[in-house]
Amino acid sequence: MKLLRYGPKGQEKPGLLDASGAIRSLTGILPDLAGDALSPGVLAKIAALDPMSLPKVEGNPRLGQCVTGLTNFVCIGLNYADHAAETGAAIPKEPIVFLKSLGAVCGPNDDVIIPRNSVKTDYECELAVIIGTTARHVSEDDALDYVAGYAIANDVSEREWQAERGGAWDKGKGFDTFGPLGPWLVTKDEIEDPQNLAMYTDIDGKRMQNGSTKTMIFGVKTLIAYVSQCITLHPGDVISTGTPPGVGLGVKPTPVFLRAGQTMKLGIAGLGEQTQKLVPWAM
Amino acid sequence: MKLLRYGPKGQEKPGLLDASGAIRSLTGILPDLAGDALSPGVLAKIAALDPMSLPKVEGNPRLGQCVTGLTNFVCIGLNYADHAAETGAAIPKEPIVFLKSLGAVCGPNDDVIIPRNSVKTDYECELAVIIGTTARHVSEDDALDYVAGYAIANDVSEREWQAERGGAWDKGKGFDTFGPLGPWLVTKDEIEDPQNLAMYTDIDGKRMQNGSTKTMIFGVKTLIAYVSQCITLHPGDVISTGTPPGVGLGVKPTPVFLRAGQTMKLGIAGLGEQTQKLVPWAM
Repeated sequence: MKLLRYGPKGQEKPGLLDASGAIRSLTGILPDLAGDALSPGVLAKIAALDPMSLPKVEGNPRLGQCVTGLTNFVCIGLNYADHAAETGAAIPKEPIVFLKSLGAVCGPNDDVIIPRNSVKTDYECELAVIIGTTARHVSEDDALDYVAGYAIANDVSEREWQAERGGAWDKGKGFDTFGPLGPWLVTKDEIEDPQNLAMYTDIDGKRMQNGSTKTMIFGVKTLIAYVSQCITLHPGDVISTGTPPGVGLGVKPTPVFLRAGQTMKLGIAGLGEQTQKLVPWAM
Repeated sequence: MKLLRYGPKGQEKPGLLDASGAIRSLTGILPDLAGDALSPGVLAKIAALDPMSLPKVEGNPRLGQCVTGLTNFVCIGLNYADHAAETGAAIPKEPIVFLKSLGAVCGPNDDVIIPRNSVKTDYECELAVIIGTTARHVSEDDALDYVAGYAIANDVSEREWQAERGGAWDKGKGFDTFGPLGPWLVTKDEIEDPQNLAMYTDIDGKRMQNGSTKTMIFGVKTLIAYVSQCITLHPGDVISTGTPPGVGLGVKPTPVFLRAGQTMKLGIAGLGEQTQKLVPWAM
């Protein structure tokens, strides 16, 4: 199933994508795609519905972030061996964990705002794992039982605030619109192997990231087990699992960062695509 | 005004403390102490009420975290010159910013759970600034206009996960119950100078932290202005402004960490006290 949220910002409604690619409304079935609605029991009930029996949503509504009500947007740093190499960093011995401001999360195709005075805004196409069941001290063997599904996240990053201003990376990761999430949550039954998904980012049509979740240092199971030791993961919470090579920071000999007017397109096999236009900061 | 939330975990109701120290209910006036309820307009309306006209809450209910619906629990690291010295760290040139998992936030007198296998759990008494109005790129001069009030936060920290496991500090700060917040939000009109507040922590009755917000490196105004450049602060969001010397990590010659069965008492002038019992992890 492909579950999504549609409508204006702050007024999104839950829905699903039917086999023809049309949106069907889940209002009346669910209050929203959040919390208990992501539990195995509720997902099974939605799966048992005939999508054709649900009201068809006409037109082409905006898509919101595919889940809401998050407690944690956990990000993993330097989790692809080839990406660590391009940034000049050592391979981490344990997962690098940081948190993205929940205020940064936005719809998959919303405009991304270049922060005021920023000249080092960068993209990061990532596999986002969406939790369905509260996870605390879970084992690697059991870890996938706690997953509702997967989505694409763009872990947009301001490299100066991330790395040149001291302290944790959190400062460079939490600007408004720095967390496009979607287009939809694809339930885990549709993803045979989360460690074998091709992924890419195009900037103005030019392929910049061209990777696979195969080259993750710490895989999805390991990350869930690891994070659940220190941060309890609640339904709707996201672990964004790091990015493959090809970010602007890694361009040789000189990094190339994003500019207003450009367009990012990010895709992961089976999870669809996101497209964001970069716009200048204006207040 | 001293605004608080009372009742069992997850079922808290809004209230205020009257002049006699009794809780008066604000149900019927406010849905909760969250979001717009913390705006200057709503706070003025509450201030205009006669507390004696509000229903008195009988008994001795549990207090919950004094605000809810947070988007960000921002923490500032090494923000007291004397604390930076005791931990052997350099004075930061810019504020060190990290985020605490929102799932860690709890009531001011709730039990604090020593994490599974942890031998390095530590306390940090901190002045928490609670935002009342959305703050984005605010100036230092205007910064206090965006504050609803102040509270005590205990930025409980697991030093091994914070500092010995690689990456950002976030891993050591987000365990369940690692964010007692309260006992109440004291509106800013009652705090003449947030940079002149005595603060202390007692462990089993022994004074361990004995400081003042005077020795902050970056003051409240500076922190709000700084953080609002990279993370938009929403009503109910918290900036926990760092801790003075005296944490267990700083004890010479050997750090002393918390053990199950101990009691922490934290106080800040004008903001009341918190008391937490340390309990072992059990699942």
